[in-house]
Amino acid sequence: MTYNLAEKTWPMIEEYLKSKKSIIIPVGSTEQHGPNGLIGIDYMSSWEIAKKVGERTKTLVSPPLCFGMALHHMAFPGTMSLTPLTYVAVLTELFQSLAKHGFRHFTVINGHGGNIPSLNAAFSQVLNGEQDYQFKLINWWHLPEVGVYEKEHFGDANGFHATCGEVSVTMHTHQEAYKEVPTNFKFAPTVREYPWPMSPQQFRTTFSDGRMGSDPSLATAAHGEKIFNIAVDAICQKIGS
Amino acid sequence: MTYNLAEKTWPMIEEYLKSKKSIIIPVGSTEQHGPNGLIGIDYMSSWEIAKKVGERTKTLVSPPLCFGMALHHMAFPGTMSLTPLTYVAVLTELFQSLAKHGFRHFTVINGHGGNIPSLNAAFSQVLNGEQDYQFKLINWWHLPEVGVYEKEHFGDANGFHATCGEVSVTMHTHQEAYKEVPTNFKFAPTVREYPWPMSPQQFRTTFSDGRMGSDPSLATAAHGEKIFNIAVDAICQKIGS
Amino acid sequence: MTYNLAEKTWPMIEEYLKSKKSIIIPVGSTEQHGPNGLIGIDYMSSWEIAKKVGERTKTLVSPPLCFGMALHHMAFPGTMSLTPLTYVAVLTELFQSLAKHGFRHFTVINGHGGNIPSLNAAFSQVLNGEQDYQFKLINWWHLPEVGVYEKEHFGDANGFHATCGEVSVTMHTHQEAYKEVPTNFKFAPTVREYPWPMSPQQFRTTFSDGRMGSDPSLATAAHGEKIFNIAVDAICQKIGS
Amino acid sequence: MTYNLAEKTWPMIEEYLKSKKSIIIPVGSTEQHGPNGLIGIDYMSSWEIAKKVGERTKTLVSPPLCFGMALHHMAFPGTMSLTPLTYVAVLTELFQSLAKHGFRHFTVINGHGGNIPSLNAAFSQVLNGEQDYQFKLINWWHLPEVGVYEKEHFGDANGFHATCGEVSVTMHTHQEAYKEVPTNFKFAPTVREYPWPMSPQQFRTTFSDGRMGSDPSLATAAHGEKIFNIAVDAICQKIGS
Amino acid sequence: MTYNLAEKTWPMIEEYLKSKKSIIIPVGSTEQHGPNGLIGIDYMSSWEIAKKVGERTKTLVSPPLCFGMALHHMAFPGTMSLTPLTYVAVLTELFQSLAKHGFRHFTVINGHGGNIPSLNAAFSQVLNGEQDYQFKLINWWHLPEVGVYEKEHFGDANGFHATCGEVSVTMHTHQEAYKEVPTNFKFAPTVREYPWPMSPQQFRTTFSDGRMGSDPSLATAAHGEKIFNIAVDAICQKIGS
Amino acid sequence: MTYNLAEKTWPMIEEYLKSKKSIIIPVGSTEQHGPNGLIGIDYMSSWEIAKKVGERTKTLVSPPLCFGMALHHMAFPGTMSLTPLTYVAVLTELFQSLAKHGFRHFTVINGHGGNIPSLNAAFSQVLNGEQDYQFKLINWWHLPEVGVYEKEHFGDANGFHATCGEVSVTMHTHQEAYKEVPTNFKFAPTVREYPWPMSPQQFRTTFSDGRMGSDPSLATAAHGEKIFNIAVDAICQKIGS
Repeated sequence: MTYNLAEKTWPMIEEYLKSKKSIIIPVGSTEQHGPNGLIGIDYMSSWEIAKKVGERTKTLVSPPLCFGMALHHMAFPGTMSLTPLTYVAVLTELFQSLAKHGFRHFTVINGHGGNIPSLNAAFSQVLNGEQDYQFKLINWWHLPEVGVYEKEHFGDANGFHATCGEVSVTMHTHQEAYKEVPTNFKFAPTVREYPWPMSPQQFRTTFSDGRMGSDPSLATAAHGEKIFNIAVDAICQKIGS
Repeated sequence: MTYNLAEKTWPMIEEYLKSKKSIIIPVGSTEQHGPNGLIGIDYMSSWEIAKKVGERTKTLVSPPLCFGMALHHMAFPGTMSLTPLTYVAVLTELFQSLAKHGFRHFTVINGHGGNIPSLNAAFSQVLNGEQDYQFKLINWWHLPEVGVYEKEHFGDANGFHATCGEVSVTMHTHQEAYKEVPTNFKFAPTVREYPWPMSPQQFRTTFSDGRMGSDPSLATAAHGEKIFNIAVDAICQKIGS
Repeated sequence: MTYNLAEKTWPMIEEYLKSKKSIIIPVGSTEQHGPNGLIGIDYMSSWEIAKKVGERTKTLVSPPLCFGMALHHMAFPGTMSLTPLTYVAVLTELFQSLAKHGFRHFTVINGHGGNIPSLNAAFSQVLNGEQDYQFKLINWWHLPEVGVYEKEHFGDANGFHATCGEVSVTMHTHQEAYKEVPTNFKFAPTVREYPWPMSPQQFRTTFSDGRMGSDPSLATAAHGEKIFNIAVDAICQKIGS
Repeated sequence: MTYNLAEKTWPMIEEYLKSKKSIIIPVGSTEQHGPNGLIGIDYMSSWEIAKKVGERTKTLVSPPLCFGMALHHMAFPGTMSLTPLTYVAVLTELFQSLAKHGFRHFTVINGHGGNIPSLNAAFSQVLNGEQDYQFKLINWWHLPEVGVYEKEHFGDANGFHATCGEVSVTMHTHQEAYKEVPTNFKFAPTVREYPWPMSPQQFRTTFSDGRMGSDPSLATAAHGEKIFNIAVDAICQKIGS
Repeated sequence: MTYNLAEKTWPMIEEYLKSKKSIIIPVGSTEQHGPNGLIGIDYMSSWEIAKKVGERTKTLVSPPLCFGMALHHMAFPGTMSLTPLTYVAVLTELFQSLAKHGFRHFTVINGHGGNIPSLNAAFSQVLNGEQDYQFKLINWWHLPEVGVYEKEHFGDANGFHATCGEVSVTMHTHQEAYKEVPTNFKFAPTVREYPWPMSPQQFRTTFSDGRMGSDPSLATAAHGEKIFNIAVDAICQKIGS
Repeated sequence: MTYNLAEKTWPMIEEYLKSKKSIIIPVGSTEQHGPNGLIGIDYMSSWEIAKKVGERTKTLVSPPLCFGMALHHMAFPGTMSLTPLTYVAVLTELFQSLAKHGFRHFTVINGHGGNIPSLNAAFSQVLNGEQDYQFKLINWWHLPEVGVYEKEHFGDANGFHATCGEVSVTMHTHQEAYKEVPTNFKFAPTVREYPWPMSPQQFRTTFSDGRMGSDPSLATAAHGEKIFNIAVDAICQKIGS
């Protein structure tokens, strides 16, 4: 049975809230992910993981917020970004909407590092003056269990953006889409030393194909399935059922 | 072949932009839709229609913005709303992101009436000072072709919110989800005269089950399939291929 | 007797509020109105109509907000525009000021189409969380009674901006000003097909003299007097006395 | 001949700008003015003065901004106030609108002390980065010439709010309105020592009839005519013709 | 004993609030002060004066807000400015933080004229709806006692920016720093007539060395010590102990 | 010789910029630091460290921004906090001010963990669209060299807020102030497990004396001197001279 909030009616939510105050909010980004990674990786991965976690823990899952803070990727076509100030406002209002209905435990499953500052800012804004909200931020690719797998199978080639791990996960969840991705790309030389943060232009000049230190040619749907399951298991344990 | 931006790589978008400057942006809302309508109707319908239109016209489709301006539905659990000011800011920044990459023709497929003022405000903000952007707003349920069908099959019972038409469309696109919706609901008496606009409380007091003048028990997946196709055809004609 | 709030003392307002909670707020714009229409048409017409409606229905009338959302007219000198975000903020604060004193029924008499999205946004913001405010938006040129008259006397030549109707109304209310308007202007060819919305530059390129499909040389003060009275009568009926 | 921008057509403004870059912007407030002063005094006085100055100096006059920063008067019914942040945004956008058309010399005729901080803030915002705008702020009641007259005829009884001077000016410009003002009011005891600034509640507790140290029963239309002329003369001299 | 809030622990503040609700907030600016004045004059002077006043009156002193509204000085390197809108927001939140803990009497010691509009705006925002806050704004260089001394010793050469008075005060409080200031500067000709307000560029063009009418070569640490003491005495009297 | 921007004249900055584009910006917070830690620890430590680093590397140091994002500490008196949205705006404008003068390399020395999200947000905003700014964020207490010392001397008792390390550093830099801190406080029981983030109330309920897992009775000025020097050395190495 689905636990997607969007696929319920409001009386079903009213019923749910009588016994449970938890909800999962998947957030991600729409941004370049290197020469062979899909632009939607960050929201598609968190959305797919969230749906599975919802089913397993019988916890409602809100629709995904597909857009995040990706200004530094804006020199690559296809990236769609909010500024930090607007993104914080959006997050704040979405959390407050849910709080108004009685939700009290918010688990954010996040697929993009650039969202973390804004998420923390939004938590602070919503918590200010309130007593009993609980926010849990889960950056799925930071889960130790995921890290162990990636280290073992990809080593340093997992990289920091367009990683083997996230490309693999979406190769598993979006196999059809990857069939259309050209495979004759050539990687630019891998850059290991660079300043941070970067402007969009600096980013493209430094990482001309969009990857940061990864070799996503190692990514496979088989790896993806395993990482997906590892992430789901780990998050389910954190949430309980 | 999919035309979802999220399921492409950035070099594929770069290639696309060499010959075409058009993109479709599906927007909707996460809000109550009466006793038997799904909360996600507004974004699910525009997203499904947009994907099909994208395939048919070979036009890229951005990820859906699942949240809109639904403050007046906030007295029903499950609704998630942005304020108009924040929503306008989000829309403005998403359009500007796309414009920065070279997109020039923006077709917004919208599934929610409450979004229309903010969409118009965002168009004005983006157009101010710029010369050659083209925005086309398509509220799919307002398409004359859709209206003809709805009038013939539902008459006045189509209503204004949680309409037979939109419930039908999502019965077609989300059949699984509707199987879990309880069918033993009872409609509140239908209210035909009311002031507008309304506060969340007024709305719930007036329309205690969330519908506005509709009889969504008339909705069927078969109707939905037809309306879906009518809408897709009509929009494809507006866009060209 | 005047019902202009500005021409009362605060004890007179305190007295009024003991028996009545209604107020009329005239809003308009300061923007180009074609080769022979006054720049202030939109606020002057709504202000004049509002004053008369106030007298007839014994309802207070706030001062006019002379500036609105006219970004698309900014390529014509004399236009003064707020951005949508600022305009919504202004409207919100003005409505809230009145609500704080006890006003509960707000009738906005509007003279400019470009204001409608912002007005709706402001209504939503003020209504959010409140129970008993009533907002009525009257776009005077959209009144069916006005439409009947304009259709009969101007037909298609009434147009969409700098219409025969609004120019006529202000010829009636501001006869002196029209005496100074040069009459030797020449209309640019009338454009019937165009995309919408437009940037300021597109607007001026498309409608080089500022009109949209109207032939304002048909406007007369005599027509204006009739339309003015039709509008006032229709609004009085909506408000009651 | 009128010099009201609102009563011109855009080609007339285009013509004007070929030889002159100056414009007068009247700003005021809608706020209580004691037991016998009109609520609109601040914008009505600046608007009337501005119109006359425009005619005399052949300088365009924008429509009045009838609302300002009057939060401290909000405990008296009829007051309509913007917050400082919104008021600054409005002023900034109006000045920028005019600057876009080529206006370079802005004379603001102001009728309300509470507006001064926001006006200065807006000047700073518009001037930041620009080279050749000239802003002149004229608070008409602060003109030394006006002060001399008021001191001679009212002495200390002129006061600081709902002054004899401003009530007189509007008795001259709005004689009809004053005929309806009840004259049987009784002044609360005059308070001479008080802290500043004040909250709305403190203001009403301290100055229970709305005046600040004035005896507006001394105001007359005859005085008003003289003060009006003194102010107009003084401002014309500052502007030149 | 110090009365710096920053040099206390929170239990010490809790104790203080049991008997006293007053706090001093020093604000200033980081901006050019002519050829021989330190960039930090405005916050260093108000911070030093505030600390001494705090000790003498046993009143807590918040840390200094070192940045203010100095857009008009931005054409001189070293100036750091907030926009008015942001500065008002900062001030508002700092006052509200203190009010939340129970502080009720706020004495702002200000060192920069350009801050005054924003300070007044922030007072209005905080006071709106509240009953019992007391704000006292002390622009130390405007104190009549200071003016008497400056007039006697510097006359017109005190000027309006980079004044003899403020340079002197910081020569007294920051003697070490002045030892490193080159003394071989040459003043540009003194300008006595100029429009106001000014853009950054106009300011630098008009006052090419940053002074406004002052001859800061008259400044000495000895004068500074006297002015410092005069200001401290005068403020202590206003505050009481 | 000092390298404090505030203690220079603008011609000295103009000179400096001819050969160097670097500046250090110290940021911190004004917030409770447990029963025996000073409220100003976060800005005092970063300010003192920054000044020393400036001298050693001959790099200019801006005045400190004494206020940061400390909403979660607001249930303890003395804390002064900005909201994240305002704090991001302030940081953005200060960086942009410096950039306008030609500074290109910005080293932020930060003393408070709660500031990190806002700092990253501000970097993103400033970098958006620009090519050659370099931001380096140094959270001094996170420096590995500092961690080694703290681990060796305090172990787990260093804690996470009001740490032995930061209390020690300010015992070294502000010995006088610590003489007045009562030493008869009693620690509440140390809490090791807690959710995060927290509202102000949750924070105070959980950590009733303000510490998070630290035993600041271990702090000494001698330790502080060593940590201070370790931090300064490490940062100087990062910056170069």
